Amino acid sequence: MITTDTNETRVEPSGEAREVLEVDDELFRDFEDLVKSRSDYLVLNIIQDLLPGDIAHILNRLGMEDASYVFGMLPNEVASTVLLDLDEPTREHLLTNLPQERITEIVGEMDSDDAADVVGELSDEKAEGVLETMNAEDSSQVEELLRYDENTAGGLMAKEMAVVNKNDTVKAAIRVVRRFAKVQKHIYNVYVVDENGVFIGAVNLTDLLLYAPNKRMHKIMNPDYKSVTPDVDQEEVARIFSKYDIVSLPVTDTAGKLLGRITVDDVVDVMEEEHDEDMARMVGSDTVTGGQRSPVQMAFLRLPWVMITLMLQLIAGVVVHLFDKTLSQIILLASFMPIISAISGNTGLQSAAMIVRGIATGQVDTKRWWVPLRRQMIVTLIIGSACGLVLGAIAGLWHGTFLFGLVVGTSMFISINFSGLIGTATPMISSSLGFDPAITAGPFETAFQDIIGITVFLSLATAMLQWL
Amino acid sequence: MITTDTNETRVEPSGEAREVLEVDDELFRDFEDLVKSRSDYLVLNIIQDLLPGDIAHILNRLGMEDASYVFGMLPNEVASTVLLDLDEPTREHLLTNLPQERITEIVGEMDSDDAADVVGELSDEKAEGVLETMNAEDSSQVEELLRYDENTAGGLMAKEMAVVNKNDTVKAAIRVVRRFAKVQKHIYNVYVVDENGVFIGAVNLTDLLLYAPNKRMHKIMNPDYKSVTPDVDQEEVARIFSKYDIVSLPVTDTAGKLLGRITVDDVVDVMEEEHDEDMARMVGSDTVTGGQRSPVQMAFLRLPWVMITLMLQLIAGVVVHLFDKTLSQIILLASFMPIISAISGNTGLQSAAMIVRGIATGQVDTKRWWVPLRRQMIVTLIIGSACGLVLGAIAGLWHGTFLFGLVVGTSMFISINFSGLIGTATPMISSSLGFDPAITAGPFETAFQDIIGITVFLSLATAMLQWL
Repeated sequence: MITTDTNETRVEPSGEAREVLEVDDELFRDFEDLVKSRSDYLVLNIIQDLLPGDIAHILNRLGMEDASYVFGMLPNEVASTVLLDLDEPTREHLLTNLPQERITEIVGEMDSDDAADVVGELSDEKAEGVLETMNAEDSSQVEELLRYDENTAGGLMAKEMAVVNKNDTVKAAIRVVRRFAKVQKHIYNVYVVDENGVFIGAVNLTDLLLYAPNKRMHKIMNPDYKSVTPDVDQEEVARIFSKYDIVSLPVTDTAGKLLGRITVDDVVDVMEEEHDEDMARMVGSDTVTGGQRSPVQMAFLRLPWVMITLMLQLIAGVVVHLFDKTLSQIILLASFMPIISAISGNTGLQSAAMIVRGIATGQVDTKRWWVPLRRQMIVTLIIGSACGLVLGAIAGLWHGTFLFGLVVGTSMFISINFSGLIGTATPMISSSLGFDPAITAGPFETAFQDIIGITVFLSLATAMLQWL
Repeated sequence: MITTDTNETRVEPSGEAREVLEVDDELFRDFEDLVKSRSDYLVLNIIQDLLPGDIAHILNRLGMEDASYVFGMLPNEVASTVLLDLDEPTREHLLTNLPQERITEIVGEMDSDDAADVVGELSDEKAEGVLETMNAEDSSQVEELLRYDENTAGGLMAKEMAVVNKNDTVKAAIRVVRRFAKVQKHIYNVYVVDENGVFIGAVNLTDLLLYAPNKRMHKIMNPDYKSVTPDVDQEEVARIFSKYDIVSLPVTDTAGKLLGRITVDDVVDVMEEEHDEDMARMVGSDTVTGGQRSPVQMAFLRLPWVMITLMLQLIAGVVVHLFDKTLSQIILLASFMPIISAISGNTGLQSAAMIVRGIATGQVDTKRWWVPLRRQMIVTLIIGSACGLVLGAIAGLWHGTFLFGLVVGTSMFISINFSGLIGTATPMISSSLGFDPAITAGPFETAFQDIIGITVFLSLATAMLQWL
């Protein structure tokens, strides 16, 4: 059965009532059956009632062949939106198998930023073919955008924007917007340039409705509107959108000439992506969501990281081995090793998470590195003291000697503080060196902390044996 | 020295050139000196050239008393934007110390959603005072909004919105927008309702410029525009913005009647917040950024979590103790304990991160839990086999017996798979029970994995001793 939610009955522009389908499990299974039996007419009928975002959701769940079949039925305009919403593996499959002419048609419906993203994903040969068959203006825009690093403002921007001269009137600006609205839905403001094409401010669409038709742009524009150059990092771009509550941001060259614009929907995608990346790297991996990559592919993506961790941890194993004699004399030491290691690992990871997010949100300034370092050290001194006292007391009571408690407690205290130091310093150092601050967190830190923690603990224990 | 960036010379609405200040370290230090010497005139002079987002940034860095002094000089309109951009501790300090009349004035400048957030942060007594002195319409809106859970669509929405009837003309709609633009800057579209106040579609501002003045709303509106009810979770709201690339989302009651609207800038804040929260919880903490909370406060916030982890890890210590006899016979076992524990911990955390993000982005559907579980199990089977083989070989060579290698390798294999299972299952279970999926990740999982891993490893070793 195909469920239709009657609350969502809406009126179409034509004036006829039509029903918007909600995608649920039942609908999906029915639809999959129709697709598998290649019932062209019925499949088409259902697709027509779905929004592009929902079609993409369904295609992601279908098998690759079935997804190709359904995608083949979509009109170019819908196909262009759906393609952008697909998970990577499905999109990759479609782009590999679609004929070049069809890709050209679909890309032709996209904004320049999205077109550049898709062309950038094609094989070199196919990309060249598409660029040659596109219209000349579009293809030169796409080629320009492909030159920017995809993690920068240049990689996010689109060339389409409504631009007016500072001496233009409201009436003239409305004409520009009207012409522009036919090819571009996302218009939130109009950018104002001076006679040299230099960006000098922005005007809200609302203002065009508000002011008299003969009012000039430079009289009504917001002259403090932010802009960025194409080399600005995408995280910084996201920060600017969040800080100034804006929905579009102009990109200019260093002389201030307008090059393009970034819209908030792209920033929302960047934030999702950064969130995924941070989570992945904190736990020592390259990707967490992984789209519909096969589990085998996922395993092989993760294996190198796991193997590096294993090798680093082997060093910790060797350190333990060096203290075999001490361990065999007081076997109870082995009981406290996993505790000290887990608590220090936890503290280090917390400090790292704090710094990674602090850098991303601008609360931590690596140039003033002593500020967060001092903060974190105070935190770990307190936590280290508390844990050292508690664990030391437990150890002392368990072994029945004050000295054993002292060794365990002191080791706990030193390990926690050392982990806090490493956890705080490494993300700041990697950020200063131009790497992702999260990249060194996770497994490397854990291994390093284990090595130091075990060394401290077993050295102190060895010293203690000599006093006993 | 106060640096002024000449590239940023802009033209003011009045036509006069003025310079926008960029905030850097030097400017900050100079400004701080002026503030400390209470040079009213000079401080005011600088503030006037700054954007609210930048003023907030400076206040966050100043001491509390100095921040209060500067805030006291801001006109209400600027103060209302600055207040919303401040870090929590600074805002808390200001709200505690500002007289009630001033708060009423500042809150009066805000949109209803922000006003509700601020009033919600006040002491009960102060909140009551503010609500009584606000104008009646504003205060009834704020009171309505305060009733919603702050993590839901109701908690995010504002009451201000441009609403037109389906039979209204473009000309009438423009009149509505004009009237509305005086109190509200963020207008991206106009919501269309039928005669019963039921939301039936949305019209872009661009369309108001595009269509003839006598065109009716129901002819030009988008009838498929999404809406949500107030109880929808804020993560789901963010997902809808991202999926349909929209900048505003109407909120309706279950009968479809319009209650308010959510704008994309609030969603950007939600995404930041969820990112912080996920990072914090994955590493077993409540908060990562912590605003300008003092380090001592931070330490005491984290202590309970650390102590719980410590107690759970003690169980692992007790398990080790149970195998004292085995350990003292083959002391080399102790060298492999930290390796097995770290690698399994890492695998479990990776699986957990994957599921947490998968649930957030909608890729993982907990109702179809077997899909991600099967995927993750295939991944951990491969990683477990690889690590088991490598570590087993190393252990066998090190100890010089095949059997020792077999014990280490098998333990590694079992631990990794078990950790993957726990890492996958716990976030899905907590999500199904209505908790944050990230909450049980981190320290609890680590402790649980350690206990199981050590038990398996040392039990196998004990069995091996009997075969030797």
